[in-house]
Amino acid sequence: MDRRKVLKGAGLAAAAATVASPAVAQTNPEIRWRMSSAYPKSLDTLYGAGEMIAKRVAAATDNKFQIQVFAAGEIVGALQTLDATQNGTIECSYTLSSFFIGKDPTFMFETSVPWGMNVRQHNAWMHYGGGLDLVREFMKDYNVYPIPAGQTGAQMGGWFRKEIKSIEDLKGLKMRIAGMGGQIMQKLGVVPQVLAAGDIYPALERGTLDAVEFSGPHDDEKLGFVKVAQYYYYPGFWEGGAQPSLYVNMGKWNELPAHYKAVLEAACAEANAMCVAKYDAQNADAIRRLVGQGVQLRPFPRDVMEQSYKEAFKLYGELAASNAKFKKVFDSWSAFREKELTWFRIAELPFDFFVNQQQGQR
Amino acid sequence: MDRRKVLKGAGLAAAAATVASPAVAQTNPEIRWRMSSAYPKSLDTLYGAGEMIAKRVAAATDNKFQIQVFAAGEIVGALQTLDATQNGTIECSYTLSSFFIGKDPTFMFETSVPWGMNVRQHNAWMHYGGGLDLVREFMKDYNVYPIPAGQTGAQMGGWFRKEIKSIEDLKGLKMRIAGMGGQIMQKLGVVPQVLAAGDIYPALERGTLDAVEFSGPHDDEKLGFVKVAQYYYYPGFWEGGAQPSLYVNMGKWNELPAHYKAVLEAACAEANAMCVAKYDAQNADAIRRLVGQGVQLRPFPRDVMEQSYKEAFKLYGELAASNAKFKKVFDSWSAFREKELTWFRIAELPFDFFVNQQQGQR
Repeated sequence: MDRRKVLKGAGLAAAAATVASPAVAQTNPEIRWRMSSAYPKSLDTLYGAGEMIAKRVAAATDNKFQIQVFAAGEIVGALQTLDATQNGTIECSYTLSSFFIGKDPTFMFETSVPWGMNVRQHNAWMHYGGGLDLVREFMKDYNVYPIPAGQTGAQMGGWFRKEIKSIEDLKGLKMRIAGMGGQIMQKLGVVPQVLAAGDIYPALERGTLDAVEFSGPHDDEKLGFVKVAQYYYYPGFWEGGAQPSLYVNMGKWNELPAHYKAVLEAACAEANAMCVAKYDAQNADAIRRLVGQGVQLRPFPRDVMEQSYKEAFKLYGELAASNAKFKKVFDSWSAFREKELTWFRIAELPFDFFVNQQQGQR
Repeated sequence: MDRRKVLKGAGLAAAAATVASPAVAQTNPEIRWRMSSAYPKSLDTLYGAGEMIAKRVAAATDNKFQIQVFAAGEIVGALQTLDATQNGTIECSYTLSSFFIGKDPTFMFETSVPWGMNVRQHNAWMHYGGGLDLVREFMKDYNVYPIPAGQTGAQMGGWFRKEIKSIEDLKGLKMRIAGMGGQIMQKLGVVPQVLAAGDIYPALERGTLDAVEFSGPHDDEKLGFVKVAQYYYYPGFWEGGAQPSLYVNMGKWNELPAHYKAVLEAACAEANAMCVAKYDAQNADAIRRLVGQGVQLRPFPRDVMEQSYKEAFKLYGELAASNAKFKKVFDSWSAFREKELTWFRIAELPFDFFVNQQQGQR
């Protein structure tokens, strides 16, 4: 290993660069950005994906392009990341488009669509089915250049204080669930609640809250819900795979030298892939521990699955009828999903189904 | 858009750089590598993944680090990529570890294990389960630093001239199938054949070959097998997801400046993710066209699936008993797989199963 030789060479280069600094500064300008993450440091995988991008960008540019990562609330809160990026308060943010469906439901497509595509299908649509182009066209109105930069995989359906045996048991249930998943669950009788993360546990304990949807086992475990709500449902059909993105202020993006753009895009693509790989490893460990702590794993009852599926696609139809931007993306998404589902029924899922059965038998 | 301003700035920098060239040359040295792909240009997705890496590396280093990609046979053939990288004939190659299981079956783990992990599970093991560290330790003996750099997803089980209704129909069947999949199919009565790609079609047409395994719909379609062998089986259980890698000569890797290493690793991670996204889009289109051309899609009969599964794990047990290197990687792989399968049975697969059923009903 020639580490010392490399370091020595770098030292000489640095000394020479001092003399010739104007030229070096022009070709590889020193750039400092701030990234506001929509996540607290405690959500180590999602917060960490932002850090991974910053580290890779610095390493790949010999520390010339540095991005400092701030946790949610340090500069702006999670729900202000779009506005702050749009108006240039910050150069970029690591955030989740589905936070902004209140501005326009079209924001949903970049993150995940309830009962939509899985991770592989979503990536195929984004990069080779025209999805990302449509998302970027839509986001131009917000002065933001989005780059896919993370992935959770399919999430869990949440923690319930009582067992849910049929759709009847959802009627009047007070559940902390946000976004479009909340809208769909509301059609099934659930009363969606808005609570900050820190308020969920005491509300569940007191029984003023009946259920909570948060993330997957790795993230959920830290919040200790198992002690106050033992039934842990799956799948989290509203997020068959949630994809956070790096939102970059359009002006800042355009000013970036072409090779820094290339570095940033590759670093985000890497974080996108590594984030879900990390979750897949971490969730597998966490679910084992949770089962050891007495969690009762339950699939959602069949009628909950079927009714939520119907309500989801009914909602998309309504949104497409009233919102031309939504319709444009939905039409592409919908056609692509149909063909992906057909293909996955052939090679991918029969492989998974069979292995799953064989493993279940042992 | 400040494109002109950026270009103007770059022009000034280039002029200044001419004066100060020694300093610039040290910090961002001009490096030229050759990458020998194990694939012909006609396999556009796999060959293209190597090109994607080269383009991204050039773009991210302002064209200072350039990698020229050569198709299989232009410098060395697919099966010589390891030797040529090991002895430094070429700096790097884009290749598939499973080509080299004749040297040591331990090479299998980096590509795919028959009836092993799917793409997500494999990535989780490689990057967050210690898999890549083990693979790199093993590859040190070959003077190669491997970087995961592509992915096919689950492949098809191949083209058969006659319908396979049970394991009995495999007895004596002459099938073009390589590697460990061939070893397992041999246990089921198949007689594996070695044929170059160009010889397959005429052999199938004449009936001197009964079946052929190649890749997935997008790649297979080009070879026109549907005209001479209409039964197209799934899943290709020997490759639930094949991962090509960039093999880098260890000396060349060590000489690379740290920021070029960072660029190359990010570019490979990006290609790894984009390759499977591209296949997932392309295969979905190709399978539709193939069905339109009269292909008969068939799942492998249950007894073929079950017996091949048994034979596969029996083989791994035998290899682990006689090969300490194999055992070391297998033990890690096997334990990780168990926990991944448990986790995927909870959130991910029930989501896929249900969506699959709903789509099938329409």
